[in-house]
Amino acid sequence: MATQAAFAASFPQLAQRRSDSAVAAPPARVGVAVRRRSSKGVAARGVSEGWASPLRGFMRESEFLQALHFNAIRGDDGRMVNMSVPIVLAVDDAQRRAIEASGARRVALVDASDRPLAVLSDIEIYKHNKEERIARTWGTTAPGLPYVDEAIKNAGDWLIGGDLEVIEPIKYNDGLDQYRLSPAQLREEFARRNADAVFAFQLRNPVHNGHALLMTDTRKCLLEMGYKNPVLLLHPLGGFTKADDVPLSWRMKQHEKVLEEGVLNPESTVVAIFPSPMHYAGPTEVQWHAKARINAGANFYIVGRDPAGMGHPTEKRDLYDADHGKKVLSMAPGLERLNILPFKVAAYDTKQKKMDFFDPSRKDDFLFISGTKMRTLAKNRQSPPDGFMCPGGWKVLVEYYDSLTPSEGSSKLREPVAA
Amino acid sequence: MATQAAFAASFPQLAQRRSDSAVAAPPARVGVAVRRRSSKGVAARGVSEGWASPLRGFMRESEFLQALHFNAIRGDDGRMVNMSVPIVLAVDDAQRRAIEASGARRVALVDASDRPLAVLSDIEIYKHNKEERIARTWGTTAPGLPYVDEAIKNAGDWLIGGDLEVIEPIKYNDGLDQYRLSPAQLREEFARRNADAVFAFQLRNPVHNGHALLMTDTRKCLLEMGYKNPVLLLHPLGGFTKADDVPLSWRMKQHEKVLEEGVLNPESTVVAIFPSPMHYAGPTEVQWHAKARINAGANFYIVGRDPAGMGHPTEKRDLYDADHGKKVLSMAPGLERLNILPFKVAAYDTKQKKMDFFDPSRKDDFLFISGTKMRTLAKNRQSPPDGFMCPGGWKVLVEYYDSLTPSEGSSKLREPVAA
Repeated sequence: MATQAAFAASFPQLAQRRSDSAVAAPPARVGVAVRRRSSKGVAARGVSEGWASPLRGFMRESEFLQALHFNAIRGDDGRMVNMSVPIVLAVDDAQRRAIEASGARRVALVDASDRPLAVLSDIEIYKHNKEERIARTWGTTAPGLPYVDEAIKNAGDWLIGGDLEVIEPIKYNDGLDQYRLSPAQLREEFARRNADAVFAFQLRNPVHNGHALLMTDTRKCLLEMGYKNPVLLLHPLGGFTKADDVPLSWRMKQHEKVLEEGVLNPESTVVAIFPSPMHYAGPTEVQWHAKARINAGANFYIVGRDPAGMGHPTEKRDLYDADHGKKVLSMAPGLERLNILPFKVAAYDTKQKKMDFFDPSRKDDFLFISGTKMRTLAKNRQSPPDGFMCPGGWKVLVEYYDSLTPSEGSSKLREPVAA
Repeated sequence: MATQAAFAASFPQLAQRRSDSAVAAPPARVGVAVRRRSSKGVAARGVSEGWASPLRGFMRESEFLQALHFNAIRGDDGRMVNMSVPIVLAVDDAQRRAIEASGARRVALVDASDRPLAVLSDIEIYKHNKEERIARTWGTTAPGLPYVDEAIKNAGDWLIGGDLEVIEPIKYNDGLDQYRLSPAQLREEFARRNADAVFAFQLRNPVHNGHALLMTDTRKCLLEMGYKNPVLLLHPLGGFTKADDVPLSWRMKQHEKVLEEGVLNPESTVVAIFPSPMHYAGPTEVQWHAKARINAGANFYIVGRDPAGMGHPTEKRDLYDADHGKKVLSMAPGLERLNILPFKVAAYDTKQKKMDFFDPSRKDDFLFISGTKMRTLAKNRQSPPDGFMCPGGWKVLVEYYDSLTPSEGSSKLREPVAA
């Protein structure tokens, strides 16, 4: 629905009350198409739903600078609120000139059919220093960072900030809308289930039994701590992911199987889609991943080795130190009250033929199955060792890689799926 | 004195009481020479004097990560304390191996004569990810950043943190030691003068009459605000500066003339040297410049256009937006109580033949004399317009450039001067 969205500056120049602004039609079109289907649409939806609260829209310059320099912004009460990843909307020279020439203080986001999706009010346009944004967010400017290539490199040289209101909740009608729960809807769901603790698990990969063990073990620990009904928020990231990650629609099918087959207990698990693009920005991004889940009611956050990390795009090493994500998260301003649960390492126990927590005293019994290894097995229709993943979940993966075969030789491996 | 300093790991392994540690001689030498005369010595002196308080030495990894990500570290009372620039000590693989093999928890910094200058205790060695440090500190990784070339590019791949104690105050016997006042000494001096407000002016350039106007005008404003005795801390940076900046010893001569000739009032001015290298890291560094002066008793800080900025090393533009320094400083965690005084723009008024605040209503009357223009005039023994700088001060500049002439054709333009 948000394909090829365009912007339109709206009249009159005078700011209207917020409740009016969303319904006022924008008479002056600036006619600016956005380049990619999902990225801006996902961001607009995410912000409007409150994931980035207290941010009310796309960042103005003061918020952008605070995010870049401090990974936190000062809230209205003077306290620091965590905000590590810039949430911004880029426009190019022509768009900027058109908006400024219109004199508008409000700009409409419109879809390909020119239907307004959202209104950005009390706007501010400022320079988009891409090099500085990239360096301060990723700690490198090396070419080949997936999100940079996807959403920044060819973006406009200006950023437009303002308060955002969507005209109506954005639906995609792709069979996944029931998983698209806002922070408010998630809080309601947790209340409905009488959860007295919510622990969040961020993921962008299929769930194997090592993940599942970790999540069930976490629930056990919380029960031992005295909580009566800890609920898991299984929260796959729904926005942009890099080309070799499994697409959202297939991951959701896989997650459904994991619950169907009882690997995770549906009674104490809420599955929902997190509407954010993956930045692969390691210690900077893990703060965003945790902060957003707090806004949705989570008070425990499971953090793993090298969260949101990846290989360095041009050097033979990991981009981030594997421990920095956890360390930075534990010290981050605005996240003082979050309980961080360090990820225990699970591996395949060849003796017990199941995934279990790694035991260094008998390390030769354990097999580490990397994401790359898992993908290679599924691509080649090979089976992983018994007990690595539930059979239905594995079948979904094999089907996904099968579905790619007809388009072999084509450069387009998969359809983008909106969050 | 600190030339070719080397490190030595000290025995015994067990940590001693801090008061003992500084006098304990280090029996086990690791024998590691540092590359440049001033940079590590200046940093050690600066930290030991309390400029970076509450930091008690070179950063351990948790402080390093907080500085990089948050430009602030959490103090013992849980509050954020501003700390924007990493204050770290690099060691190479061989040094790391030698220190670790010695089992020492304390390391001595020794000078060229193997005389211990300081002791680093309760040490921690961790990875020096230079790319990430540079990207997050400068917002670019472009080649040609002066401080990176000077102190990071060829530094070791490890950082060693710990609590630092100097054996005795470091003297340089270069005729400038009387200007090397610690924060405690400056606070005493302000108290002795009965200052009820201290306003700091950071500079790395000769003082022209535009600067002087700004400082005298600031004092006037503070008097009008009701302060009885505002005192100026004229605080030239004493550590590393880039090759085309005027060296410290000549700048100090120039500043002396400015006071001798009454352009600034010696009664209400304290001149001292700030022991820090110049990073040219713009909005990140200006926080350090302000924070350190707060530690020395300043409560007002004058911030100019593009503080600590420079041209982009590889692109035809300024590295930082000229307004970002002031904006970032005004929002920085841990600097909430600092009063920031924005720098008014002064220029040469050709009608009145003096430096004055720029009046946009008669902009053609004003001449902007850049640092480059000033240097070119002095190099060519030309005179600036009357009233641009006091004659004695200008003479010092001309003498400085004259002093370079004999060594023309030599690549070494000037002697490094320790802070």
